[in-house]
Amino acid sequence: MIVDPASTPQRDVYKLLIGSVVPRPIGFVSTVSTEGVFNLAPFSFFNAVCGDPPMVCFAISHRDPSKDTARNVAATREFVVNIVSEEIAEKMNLTSGDYAQGVDEFAVAGLTPVASEAVRAPRVAESPVSMECRVVQMIDLSPKPAGTDLVIGEVVRFHVKDEIVENFRIDPDKLKAIARMGGNEYSRSRDRFELIRPKV
Amino acid sequence: MIVDPASTPQRDVYKLLIGSVVPRPIGFVSTVSTEGVFNLAPFSFFNAVCGDPPMVCFAISHRDPSKDTARNVAATREFVVNIVSEEIAEKMNLTSGDYAQGVDEFAVAGLTPVASEAVRAPRVAESPVSMECRVVQMIDLSPKPAGTDLVIGEVVRFHVKDEIVENFRIDPDKLKAIARMGGNEYSRSRDRFELIRPKV
Repeated sequence: MIVDPASTPQRDVYKLLIGSVVPRPIGFVSTVSTEGVFNLAPFSFFNAVCGDPPMVCFAISHRDPSKDTARNVAATREFVVNIVSEEIAEKMNLTSGDYAQGVDEFAVAGLTPVASEAVRAPRVAESPVSMECRVVQMIDLSPKPAGTDLVIGEVVRFHVKDEIVENFRIDPDKLKAIARMGGNEYSRSRDRFELIRPKV
Repeated sequence: MIVDPASTPQRDVYKLLIGSVVPRPIGFVSTVSTEGVFNLAPFSFFNAVCGDPPMVCFAISHRDPSKDTARNVAATREFVVNIVSEEIAEKMNLTSGDYAQGVDEFAVAGLTPVASEAVRAPRVAESPVSMECRVVQMIDLSPKPAGTDLVIGEVVRFHVKDEIVENFRIDPDKLKAIARMGGNEYSRSRDRFELIRPKV
């Protein structure tokens, strides 16, 4: 099948895109508004983008139930990315509803905000890893009215639960990260194999 | 454990980053040089970034064995992202070696280049999905000498194997996408579960 996005309904193009680029890691992003209200929302257009210095990016569609995140990141230039383990998957999902502006999703999901070290946005106590970030760039990606902001941030602090890490190596069987597939599906990360990069 | 990247060896910071942001989808990127030499290399700092129009991004570290990709993308403003299934995992890994400039990794790995429709870069015949892309932006992310380019591209054609798709929904059990973990590990995407987004 060959599909030209320019002549295909947008909904069908989107299904192809999110069904193909899988599994997508989840950035569970916590922010705070200038009025001090916490916000928490999951994003799967998320990944690391640079190793030195460590940077991550995530994209916010203006149609998402995540407009508070865009507003808070733009106003404070700070955010925290929390990693989603199997244990907190259902709570993460509770935060993905389209709540009214100003609703604190920590309270909705029963997750615990903890003060960060270097940024004002709180981190999620229940997450196995949290990364405090400062915004490097925000890019308006889409020319269409819906709009998408790509947020690029530098990690200024890592918080890692002691029991999942040894000599900076995170044990994936203890992290138990989940990732986003197409539709309503998620993938676990327990089913793994190893490939050694060839020496040339 | 709390880690400040500014006061931690870069190698250890990198281990934390790639062990935490998992599983990362793999963009298997094919390009062609202005002299007509094909290039093929995998990138795990890769994801979708926009749904409308469909866009993807991937980051090229200048230390990676992937300098040909950066050169070709900058010169031609085009690339193809191919999805890596379990079936072609080992061939993908063969292309990740640090080969001399001008080596055609299609030949190294025994993969088949096929002419694209809208771009000059070839696609990988064996991939279940390929996305022909035109560059929207290339961003120099890292101020450090190592350097990292973030490439953002718009998908102008999808190629999807007929047997894995129905009504634009890609069957993940037929796609069998693999993803990158920390170290030398990869994750399959067969171990899944469903969560329904809450109605508010």
